[in-house]
Amino acid sequence: MDTPNEFPSLQLRSLVRIPGELEVSLAQAPVPAPKGDEVVVRVEGAPLNPSDLGLLFGAADMATARQSGTREKPVITATIPPERMPAMASRLGQPMPVGNEGAGVVVAAGESPEAQALVGRTVALLGGAMYAQYRSIKAKVCLVLPEGTTAAEGASCFVNPLTSQGMVETMRMEGHKALVHSAAASNLGQMLNRICSADKVGLVNIVRSRAQADLLKGQGAAYVCDSSSPGFLEDLTEALVATGATIAFDAVGGGPLAGQILGCMEAAAGRTAREYSRYGSAVHKQVYVYGNLDPAPSTITRNYGMAWGVGGWYLTPFLQKIGRDGQQKLRARVAAELKTTFASRYAREISLAEALTLEHIAAYNKRSTGEKFLLNPNKGLPT
Amino acid sequence: MDTPNEFPSLQLRSLVRIPGELEVSLAQAPVPAPKGDEVVVRVEGAPLNPSDLGLLFGAADMATARQSGTREKPVITATIPPERMPAMASRLGQPMPVGNEGAGVVVAAGESPEAQALVGRTVALLGGAMYAQYRSIKAKVCLVLPEGTTAAEGASCFVNPLTSQGMVETMRMEGHKALVHSAAASNLGQMLNRICSADKVGLVNIVRSRAQADLLKGQGAAYVCDSSSPGFLEDLTEALVATGATIAFDAVGGGPLAGQILGCMEAAAGRTAREYSRYGSAVHKQVYVYGNLDPAPSTITRNYGMAWGVGGWYLTPFLQKIGRDGQQKLRARVAAELKTTFASRYAREISLAEALTLEHIAAYNKRSTGEKFLLNPNKGLPT
Repeated sequence: MDTPNEFPSLQLRSLVRIPGELEVSLAQAPVPAPKGDEVVVRVEGAPLNPSDLGLLFGAADMATARQSGTREKPVITATIPPERMPAMASRLGQPMPVGNEGAGVVVAAGESPEAQALVGRTVALLGGAMYAQYRSIKAKVCLVLPEGTTAAEGASCFVNPLTSQGMVETMRMEGHKALVHSAAASNLGQMLNRICSADKVGLVNIVRSRAQADLLKGQGAAYVCDSSSPGFLEDLTEALVATGATIAFDAVGGGPLAGQILGCMEAAAGRTAREYSRYGSAVHKQVYVYGNLDPAPSTITRNYGMAWGVGGWYLTPFLQKIGRDGQQKLRARVAAELKTTFASRYAREISLAEALTLEHIAAYNKRSTGEKFLLNPNKGLPT
Repeated sequence: MDTPNEFPSLQLRSLVRIPGELEVSLAQAPVPAPKGDEVVVRVEGAPLNPSDLGLLFGAADMATARQSGTREKPVITATIPPERMPAMASRLGQPMPVGNEGAGVVVAAGESPEAQALVGRTVALLGGAMYAQYRSIKAKVCLVLPEGTTAAEGASCFVNPLTSQGMVETMRMEGHKALVHSAAASNLGQMLNRICSADKVGLVNIVRSRAQADLLKGQGAAYVCDSSSPGFLEDLTEALVATGATIAFDAVGGGPLAGQILGCMEAAAGRTAREYSRYGSAVHKQVYVYGNLDPAPSTITRNYGMAWGVGGWYLTPFLQKIGRDGQQKLRARVAAELKTTFASRYAREISLAEALTLEHIAAYNKRSTGEKFLLNPNKGLPT
């Protein structure tokens, strides 16, 4: 194979240029020829996950976004409100590549046999900077996809598949027997529903519309509670009684939801309580907030005794906790069930330049269920 | 010793008589002569702790309280708002004795040598129903007070001394090196300050007035932050940087405080961070809510990364977690340091009848720092 000295590579970058101003643009970031156990992957699919959007647009108010630059290289500029700048201070002046995960074809490899073995294979990657035409990476961290798998099919091998499995594992590790999930009609929620169905784990799905409820029920979900319905709290309590769920993973974050879940868990526990306890039920009730669909403050009403907790949850510390063997087990299941349990669907595939248009940003930054976009950094570009 | 067949004993009782109505009254509840390893204690001191007030007045709106009955046996009646009745449903129709802890003199004992050995001794008790003239209890659960200790001095041997030690132990067990305490000028807070001073543990005290700050500083507290001061958040952040505290025990509960503490912990972590992390600092930041001075919802702003938790904390599960040996260690320290580290101060000593007057209820139910009342169930009564 004839390897060039470097691969010209257009890369998406997010920069807090000056206090109060975010700039997202495309820049050339050539990838050097691989050495040793490195490979170079031509990225052909990378999802725009909520966790990517957090880095991409930071604390900017995207209602203020303006588009400039050229058609091939648009530039997006947006204002960061002063009160949100403290959280952005440490990234001031540093152009940051974006894109947690993706998939593509190995187009060059270093001299090690491990790297050489991957040439021509389609692989899935986790590690950041995936919104670029090429990505250099160690061969051993590539997840080799089964023959016949496209980059689009393998683009979301890590974040959602490991997060959904991580929720079920956390449930088990912390001694609960069933779980609650909010924003449950998302790609992640649909995955979780398939896992729980296969593993016979009780799952209470909370969605925000009748259409989402119908979607999940159509996929066999046994318990779906619609928070826009007037009977929501009663429905939720019934589902908690039926499943015994005492742990929840909440993608919404803001508003009353986390507190409502705890309140309904307490009401469910009270249905079987035999005597009054001034401290509420003794069973520990936990809500983990893993997303931020509603950035408003969470209002925690604390009318559910003393055995409760609300906290942040995310993938990285969970993976550290379960160690290398635990991670390997989860990854193996992803590879084996990529086209079934862990299949993702995208509303649209866009190019790097399309990702920086106001029209597409308005769509993929909405964070609404069922509108996930796939970025193909090589779409419309000569390879 | 000549033991009567039973001890006539006036007892305070809290009753949700009918839905929407709380009644607190005094009733005769004779205590039978002790048998075997039982003793009968004449209760001479029992504190009115916030945890007692929760059972005493339940979810009633005490602004609606009315006093009836006689001077010797007043009756207090108050309305329970309909929206708070669900939490009270399981105690409907059950007269509940009140008073978690107290101290008094052993006036009769069963035939076992262990019980007989206690006759005439002043002992401290934990176990409920202490707002009564006499309490029957197993000899082995009595904490025998050193000679020369009064019942008033030994009345608060458990709740505050074990809770304050429990906070420091929880801090150690969960891997933190210093702690934050709110409502820190309380009896409990002053105890915690003395423990931390003796054990060389960093403690950040949060108080709600200048006078409380002065009180604690006068007792040698190194870090006192006044939440009524305009520089509160900056002061708190500085104290967190200085101590490295990443766990807090909050008695306030409602409003922004728990979230503010987490936000300042994150800001303190950011002072030493070397690079931007979109998930915030990796160090886990924890607030345990153990009180309810402000019953409003807690507003959790979630602008402090993902490594955070807020949850309920109280003594009973903590004691279960540390087991019998751990408990014994904590109790031994209380007995040894009862007049120093674990000394309590009371604004006033009142009788059972005085406890059921609107005037005194208004004072001891205020839950304001420094106004703790001691109930002496035998005050003004023939013994």
